[in-house]
Amino acid sequence: MGNLNSTAREEDGPPALSKRGAEAAKPAISYLPEMLAAMGDLYDPETNPEGYVVAAAAENKLLYKDILEPKLCEAHRKLSEVAEHELFSPYYGDMRGMPNVRKAVAGLMEELVVKKKKLDPDCLCLTPGVTSAVNMMAFVLGNPGDGVLIPAPYYPAFDNDLHTRTGLVPTPARMEKIKIDQPEDVPGLPVQWRITEASLEKGLAEAKAKGLNVRIFLLTNPENPLGFSHTVEELETVIKFVRKHKMHLISDEIYAGDCHSAREGDATHVSVLDLTEGDDIHVLYGMSKDFGLSGHRMGFIYTENKDAVKSISSLSGFQSVSGPAQAVLYELVSDLDFVRSYVAESNRRLRDACDKVQGHLTSLGIEFYRPTASLFFMIDLRKYLSAPTWDAEMELFQTFFKNKFIITPGKACHFKEPGYYRVCFAAASEEAMALLCNRLSKVLASVQVSNAAASDE
Amino acid sequence: MGNLNSTAREEDGPPALSKRGAEAAKPAISYLPEMLAAMGDLYDPETNPEGYVVAAAAENKLLYKDILEPKLCEAHRKLSEVAEHELFSPYYGDMRGMPNVRKAVAGLMEELVVKKKKLDPDCLCLTPGVTSAVNMMAFVLGNPGDGVLIPAPYYPAFDNDLHTRTGLVPTPARMEKIKIDQPEDVPGLPVQWRITEASLEKGLAEAKAKGLNVRIFLLTNPENPLGFSHTVEELETVIKFVRKHKMHLISDEIYAGDCHSAREGDATHVSVLDLTEGDDIHVLYGMSKDFGLSGHRMGFIYTENKDAVKSISSLSGFQSVSGPAQAVLYELVSDLDFVRSYVAESNRRLRDACDKVQGHLTSLGIEFYRPTASLFFMIDLRKYLSAPTWDAEMELFQTFFKNKFIITPGKACHFKEPGYYRVCFAAASEEAMALLCNRLSKVLASVQVSNAAASDE
Repeated sequence: MGNLNSTAREEDGPPALSKRGAEAAKPAISYLPEMLAAMGDLYDPETNPEGYVVAAAAENKLLYKDILEPKLCEAHRKLSEVAEHELFSPYYGDMRGMPNVRKAVAGLMEELVVKKKKLDPDCLCLTPGVTSAVNMMAFVLGNPGDGVLIPAPYYPAFDNDLHTRTGLVPTPARMEKIKIDQPEDVPGLPVQWRITEASLEKGLAEAKAKGLNVRIFLLTNPENPLGFSHTVEELETVIKFVRKHKMHLISDEIYAGDCHSAREGDATHVSVLDLTEGDDIHVLYGMSKDFGLSGHRMGFIYTENKDAVKSISSLSGFQSVSGPAQAVLYELVSDLDFVRSYVAESNRRLRDACDKVQGHLTSLGIEFYRPTASLFFMIDLRKYLSAPTWDAEMELFQTFFKNKFIITPGKACHFKEPGYYRVCFAAASEEAMALLCNRLSKVLASVQVSNAAASDE
Repeated sequence: MGNLNSTAREEDGPPALSKRGAEAAKPAISYLPEMLAAMGDLYDPETNPEGYVVAAAAENKLLYKDILEPKLCEAHRKLSEVAEHELFSPYYGDMRGMPNVRKAVAGLMEELVVKKKKLDPDCLCLTPGVTSAVNMMAFVLGNPGDGVLIPAPYYPAFDNDLHTRTGLVPTPARMEKIKIDQPEDVPGLPVQWRITEASLEKGLAEAKAKGLNVRIFLLTNPENPLGFSHTVEELETVIKFVRKHKMHLISDEIYAGDCHSAREGDATHVSVLDLTEGDDIHVLYGMSKDFGLSGHRMGFIYTENKDAVKSISSLSGFQSVSGPAQAVLYELVSDLDFVRSYVAESNRRLRDACDKVQGHLTSLGIEFYRPTASLFFMIDLRKYLSAPTWDAEMELFQTFFKNKFIITPGKACHFKEPGYYRVCFAAASEEAMALLCNRLSKVLASVQVSNAAASDE
């Protein structure tokens, strides 16, 4: 090999990556290194009691072992029979998903997401996860440099998903915090986060002041990191707003099935597609949240915009979903009886997990925004910061990490003020979440002391 | 819904797609509309005898029914058992592929692609097909506007795969056609296509004259559309050339296992990684050709460039391979005894299919470049064109289409001169390929008459 590796080359070094290639190597979220370290050393009551409890990933791990795994094994058993296996071509075909699979997905979405409208399988495109779907829509709908207006606080990875490979610029429209009269028996801060016309116009004005041309609005409903569904009134406000300003509306409804609150008066999920339709409405759904199958990388784009479908179909050649995975998906979601009973049980367990963590937080005297949907508590730890700064927020996060648990810092979720953290209450077992709260209480006790000491000086 | 769809909006119409979104809607290859029409109306001896025979897709359909399908059903049967199913996490994990799956793929590639070197699973990234891998490497290695030098003739879809989403500019380095003394018993044109230093320098000079900054060299070995493996001498020429000019070398070795010639003296596949190594060498492989599983969308990038791996890992969040598909892949490729016997049988059948089509072509008096590897005949139909133009080549293609078969026009394969067509001899059954040749002979007979008549005038 020696003669092929010339001296000249060794002196110069090999050619570099592209500029964007080098940029892409940066972590997609700020706390990824800690996250990866923790995921490589996860708590297990028997094999790794000193391991990390990770409540920073948006995962629902409460139903896999006894419900989903048997169903998936059953799906594979079916696919081991030639007659069933033959339903799925092994060859080149429709890159955005096989027609029979898209039909089954349309049925799933009619059950869980868009409940009043018949969905057309030809308006559906499969992508490897909703991350991929967001990036795809950013490419197809936005020109580089265009702004994307997002009600804030919002999901940490949108910044990466909208910008990398596509060059769009996320820009927040901060929701209003409206004080409410809350019955004594309802826990949590007496505040309702709301999208209002004023909040949207303010966000747009701020975006314009930054020189952004905003052509896309990205809604997450139910919300993340805040755990609630938007009301019909809010959705109508959004729809009127995007039409007034001629924007596309991408509605990420990946938590549509996770509406676990049983309390009367809490909004349940309504899809924008149940309120309007048109070439400017694009709904996203997937299997990573309600079904917790984040490793299956299964996202769905529903759009009646024929040009968008054409463009997505063409681009799907670069990011299509593997045939065998489509087949497994088909077996899972075409059984709507299973889907119905699964989601009912999922919400029972989510409600229970939510109640348990709520109990721990309450006993620790930690304030929080009460979740009614999706998977998160936002907890208020402002008084435990050494100073009201983002650095202090990250410093406390690092202390959590040293004490073997991870929760998401509020800055990553685009909170306006330092000191809030997102806790996913379904990402670990009841026992592991209790341990996390215990470790948290120890950190806070020591922090209170040291901060008290500091302020004595 | 009426009040949400304001009149103002209806007058203006909905917002448009992005510029690049609209561009992406264009077909990835020039003959895609005919291809899709034909694939929707495929020949079947019993159910659709008047249907199309498609020999334009690069597919190997000769082993699915009796060998691959039973093996895949067996893979699913294994995955229906909890203990086996548990080997594959259903949750977020390494987006570029699970470690155990990458280890199995490294073993597969050591068997079929890189035979003398131990491969490191940490240098492997899974992508949804090699199409996706090419696009990924274009993004990671090239800046928009950079040129990619490719020995020509070359694979039709590279133009799309290198340019869409990434903005790179493919530019040909035409191989030399060297006349050879060919024994009487060897069929085909007595010509050897060769990559030489002169051909590469000429291609680079032409690229520079177009103002291109060439930082990437893309080799396909074995070749497509020409069906042969490059010699060690040619590979060494390429390696010296890319190092002299400080380029990255992407070596697409997706046909590595398809070396069907049994004739002594025909080059068999050697990987560039068996001749050199370094941060500038990137090898691609996948399951779509040797295994014919194009619908599984399974591509592999092997690169020892740690920065590239980091960047690809990060970007893999947008185009990762679904967990269940990785599990099925694992069951298939970790059985190396199966892989060995499969590839031996595949080459027996490819040799046989190649011989049969060769017989038809010879009896029709059609000249061709003899394939020794990959899946294609390039046939010379120059004398059947109504004029020596690309329009006439496309006109004849349309006549083929009207007569219910599709083969790839040479222009799409970047031939220099009109009148060559690529025939994939493994994309249909022996009987269907015989029918294609029969339909071809009828077209050529009628064309000869009409052209003869035309030249009489």
